[in-house]
Amino acid sequence: MTTITTPPDTSLDTVAQLAAQLRVDAIRSSTSAGSGHPTSSMSAADLLAVLVARHLRYDWDDPSADTNDHLIFSKGHASPLLYAVFKAVGVVTDEELMHDYRRFGQRLQGHPTPALPWVDVATGSLGQGLPDGVGVALAGKYLDKKPYRIWVLCGDSELAEGSIWEAFDKASYYRLSNLTVIVDVNRLGQRGETELGWNLDAYAARAEAFGARVLTIDGHDLTAIDQALTTATDSTDADGRPTVILAKTVKGKGFSEVEDRPGWHGKPFPADMAERAIAELGGPRHLTIRGPRRPAGRGTDGRAPAAAGDKARPSYELGAKVATRKAYGDALVALGARDPRVVALDGEVNNSTYAFEFARAFPDRYFEMFIAEQQMIAAATGLAARGYRPFASTFAAFLTRAYDFIRMGSISGVDVRLVGSHAGLEIGADGPSQMGLEDIAMIRAVHGSTVLYPADATSTVALTNAMATNPGISYLRTTRGAYPVLYPDGEPFPIGGSKVLRESDHDHVVLIGAGVTLHACLAAADNLAEAGITARVIDAYSVKPIDGTTLAAAATATGGRIVVAEDHHPEGGLGCAVIDSLVADGISDLHITHLAVRDMPGSGSGAELLAWAGIDANHIAAAARHLVTSG
Amino acid sequence: MTTITTPPDTSLDTVAQLAAQLRVDAIRSSTSAGSGHPTSSMSAADLLAVLVARHLRYDWDDPSADTNDHLIFSKGHASPLLYAVFKAVGVVTDEELMHDYRRFGQRLQGHPTPALPWVDVATGSLGQGLPDGVGVALAGKYLDKKPYRIWVLCGDSELAEGSIWEAFDKASYYRLSNLTVIVDVNRLGQRGETELGWNLDAYAARAEAFGARVLTIDGHDLTAIDQALTTATDSTDADGRPTVILAKTVKGKGFSEVEDRPGWHGKPFPADMAERAIAELGGPRHLTIRGPRRPAGRGTDGRAPAAAGDKARPSYELGAKVATRKAYGDALVALGARDPRVVALDGEVNNSTYAFEFARAFPDRYFEMFIAEQQMIAAATGLAARGYRPFASTFAAFLTRAYDFIRMGSISGVDVRLVGSHAGLEIGADGPSQMGLEDIAMIRAVHGSTVLYPADATSTVALTNAMATNPGISYLRTTRGAYPVLYPDGEPFPIGGSKVLRESDHDHVVLIGAGVTLHACLAAADNLAEAGITARVIDAYSVKPIDGTTLAAAATATGGRIVVAEDHHPEGGLGCAVIDSLVADGISDLHITHLAVRDMPGSGSGAELLAWAGIDANHIAAAARHLVTSG
Repeated sequence: MTTITTPPDTSLDTVAQLAAQLRVDAIRSSTSAGSGHPTSSMSAADLLAVLVARHLRYDWDDPSADTNDHLIFSKGHASPLLYAVFKAVGVVTDEELMHDYRRFGQRLQGHPTPALPWVDVATGSLGQGLPDGVGVALAGKYLDKKPYRIWVLCGDSELAEGSIWEAFDKASYYRLSNLTVIVDVNRLGQRGETELGWNLDAYAARAEAFGARVLTIDGHDLTAIDQALTTATDSTDADGRPTVILAKTVKGKGFSEVEDRPGWHGKPFPADMAERAIAELGGPRHLTIRGPRRPAGRGTDGRAPAAAGDKARPSYELGAKVATRKAYGDALVALGARDPRVVALDGEVNNSTYAFEFARAFPDRYFEMFIAEQQMIAAATGLAARGYRPFASTFAAFLTRAYDFIRMGSISGVDVRLVGSHAGLEIGADGPSQMGLEDIAMIRAVHGSTVLYPADATSTVALTNAMATNPGISYLRTTRGAYPVLYPDGEPFPIGGSKVLRESDHDHVVLIGAGVTLHACLAAADNLAEAGITARVIDAYSVKPIDGTTLAAAATATGGRIVVAEDHHPEGGLGCAVIDSLVADGISDLHITHLAVRDMPGSGSGAELLAWAGIDANHIAAAARHLVTSG
Repeated sequence: MTTITTPPDTSLDTVAQLAAQLRVDAIRSSTSAGSGHPTSSMSAADLLAVLVARHLRYDWDDPSADTNDHLIFSKGHASPLLYAVFKAVGVVTDEELMHDYRRFGQRLQGHPTPALPWVDVATGSLGQGLPDGVGVALAGKYLDKKPYRIWVLCGDSELAEGSIWEAFDKASYYRLSNLTVIVDVNRLGQRGETELGWNLDAYAARAEAFGARVLTIDGHDLTAIDQALTTATDSTDADGRPTVILAKTVKGKGFSEVEDRPGWHGKPFPADMAERAIAELGGPRHLTIRGPRRPAGRGTDGRAPAAAGDKARPSYELGAKVATRKAYGDALVALGARDPRVVALDGEVNNSTYAFEFARAFPDRYFEMFIAEQQMIAAATGLAARGYRPFASTFAAFLTRAYDFIRMGSISGVDVRLVGSHAGLEIGADGPSQMGLEDIAMIRAVHGSTVLYPADATSTVALTNAMATNPGISYLRTTRGAYPVLYPDGEPFPIGGSKVLRESDHDHVVLIGAGVTLHACLAAADNLAEAGITARVIDAYSVKPIDGTTLAAAATATGGRIVVAEDHHPEGGLGCAVIDSLVADGISDLHITHLAVRDMPGSGSGAELLAWAGIDANHIAAAARHLVTSG
């Protein structure tokens, strides 16, 4: 590997020209688009000009180079500034800037996404770019072991998001001195002044208390900016602290008519104002300026650590009682042994989710996120952006804490694997706060997601393996209690498939379950058989995509008599997936009984609660009997 | 109003007896239940004994008294301790403690809920009790104007949640000196040591930086605890700061076999251990101790401020173009004038959601939450627990940030109104990060929720009014753009209803829309009419509950030919609600075309994106034509 260092040789006079160009281009692009955030871009233009010209080490001709620094706009609405930077380094033309920004079908979207090769993660939901950056920094320090740096531009408004403090907390806990956060403190939010205004001391005290090295500067003083960025790159900080640069700035800086004025958030200038602003800034410029290309020092070659060698896929005896959460832990260890890109994260419940098995086997690839689910998903997103294969686990119920991050992960196009244990009221005594009863609906609604809900240990292992290479957001739902192993080792479980566990050529009714309710369906089928009713039983382990072909065939074979049972609220879960599929396939004459958790549970044993909700074997059998006898 | 103050006259010797009793009872109840968290209860027993005996002002015979202090267990898993307190003050019997805890159908659930009259809000998802307490404290200081205090017991593990720092931030911003946070720093989380262990200085620096008055004590020194609680009640703190008491404690304190030992989180003691523990703690006790009953000082009488008098309900001219978000703002102001219990919160986008109209009209009843959606929902929950009628608004997309809080609000049984603006890809240029495309699925899956999605200003006003007295979690989805007013002033819009806008006795097909797609359905119907196809058009403004009767009648009248179009991802939204309802009603022979946002949008104009997604008038008409001509 070559290790060329380009010295920071662009003079500050030239940087000043660049800053003016960035402002002018932010104005031009947003005015041409008729929307966008020029004033939020102008406040940070000096910061970005110095950064890009003298400190950001990036080979713009090779955005995938693993020596490149990473630039993340946590304040994604400042996209006019980011795209102006892309023009200034010569990767986006002035024409694209002027004609494509915010236009239909174009890559210069209103907020940045990885549709652009220089963008790691999608931003625009505030308070997420920094947590994502923590994930990239974890990859850099602990996995890639490359000297690249992560530069995150934050707005001051977004410091009100708790996720920002989860990020500072984890950045200091993991000693991420490769991370620099530049906060553009322009005092004005969308609708008025921020909580703390220009009280930089208050921000400094908070960031310091959370373990950062804090530098406070005038965000329009190029020399001060340059010094702060130089200090940030001084990795000799003995404590390994991340650096936070608090830059006091002026919103709309450079155009006297709007400087520090409220009422100009998210508004492009009308043509006449834009003209005056551009004139005040010295007119359009078309400088191309590239900063240093590659970091000094080479880091390690390739990704570390290597695979620990093949390890037998776990297998289980038929009929043995094994919790799917336990099988997940077993499977993840075996997967980790085969694939060095597999990494795991957990939210301080790894002894419940069984992620602890991976943590023990591969401590270098396990990141404990403590009770900070938002940061956990963001870290997974950042790690995935660096090419790793993260599995992030907590209770299914607590994944709801990070829904906005999961949604944004989908926009980022990352492949992230979520595992939610203790699904449903099956958990029993702990009560509803710990019961995931909305998780399937939540994840199904995310674009491009996959939802898997295995009923036994064998299928859990197969699906955990399948998730490792599955694109987009994949979700595995696991169960607290131990249930019999249903499938022999080696049985295939393709995503989008299902298993027909009971079947004849004269089935009266179909019972569809997943997870705990599949076991109830099997028991119900036994019960029904005694009464002479033959039930087909389907394990819908792949809730999204669902196996429409098998469902349609079953519906057709049984006159549309279907009982579907799920340990989830009735909206958006397994039942909806089944019904939507059948209706979309044009199957008419349906007689579906949808058993789900239709009231608010309390505590109790799992069996008591399954019965109370009407999703146990007795209720499934009764529903089937009713369907069969009523027509 | 009488204002009796009971002096804190229970001696610390007696308090020590009480503390031992609380520990013993926590052990007894969890061992009898076979699950629960005795060690997490034992660490905080001394804190609670002093608080309850000498500082908490509570009329245990009248839990609804508006002079009562509020005790919130943010560490809800310490329910054995809370229930032991309830026994000690005489409101729960020893028998209930021993036989009902964590049992099916009983109110002493695994984590506390308002099924118990002394519990304000459900806890158990960590990091939520404190933000909820901020809501109660806002009510106390700004609305009730009563001198009651809010005492929140936090665990140390949950301080890793960003929501805790959102809460500290808002508590200091709103100068909530009526709030005291007691942090039980027992060093051990579920799976090992916490991030910061017993580093109380680190916690102190963080809490101080976020604006709290911090007191650090030995959490087992009764005198020190008493002094700290006395200081906390000294409301002369000039800065109006909330108080944080950092108490260094020992997990399992009082039973030498488990003290400060990992591996005992969430585990009841086996019978023999429980016996030894109880012996070590001096055996069972059955003291009844009540502390001070009522606060000194009377506060104001009744709730302030009074209604500002009747104000005309906003009305709009038929055909005028008005955004539903604007109508929401208008409606909220009129509602606020009539009902002094109506309060509003927003996440720093009130000029987008139009909550600013309420903020201007009723600044005393508006709480700006800045960009902290979790705290916004928690504050609404706390305000609702005090009997107010909160409306909390932000972009629909950003409500995903607070899903766990919405879910817990449902468990708390509070009536909270959510308003999500800028729904769907209709918003256009800003791109997918700002588009609510999962919000309907998310809220529908919450137990007892209501989802409303009006298409015009008149229905928005009616539904905003209906939400004010609607139980549970109610959600209003509003649209960015302005569309024609469809309904005359005074038209009723009951929750659970719908409107049939076009209807004949020979309809060929049904078009179902809500919000922006209803306008597309109307345009499609015009288009179809030109081709001789008569379409029934239904405004499904109530997505949950949905108007099954009208849907079934329409399906029956048209041979089941239905086009449903929605600006939302296909899972869990309007289409699913329609399909589920028809299937549940046993309507067979369905031919449904479900148009939804099936890919990841980018930027563009609203019209371009609606066309791209296939949910505009042209696509609806084409789908209808296909249904009609193909059978």
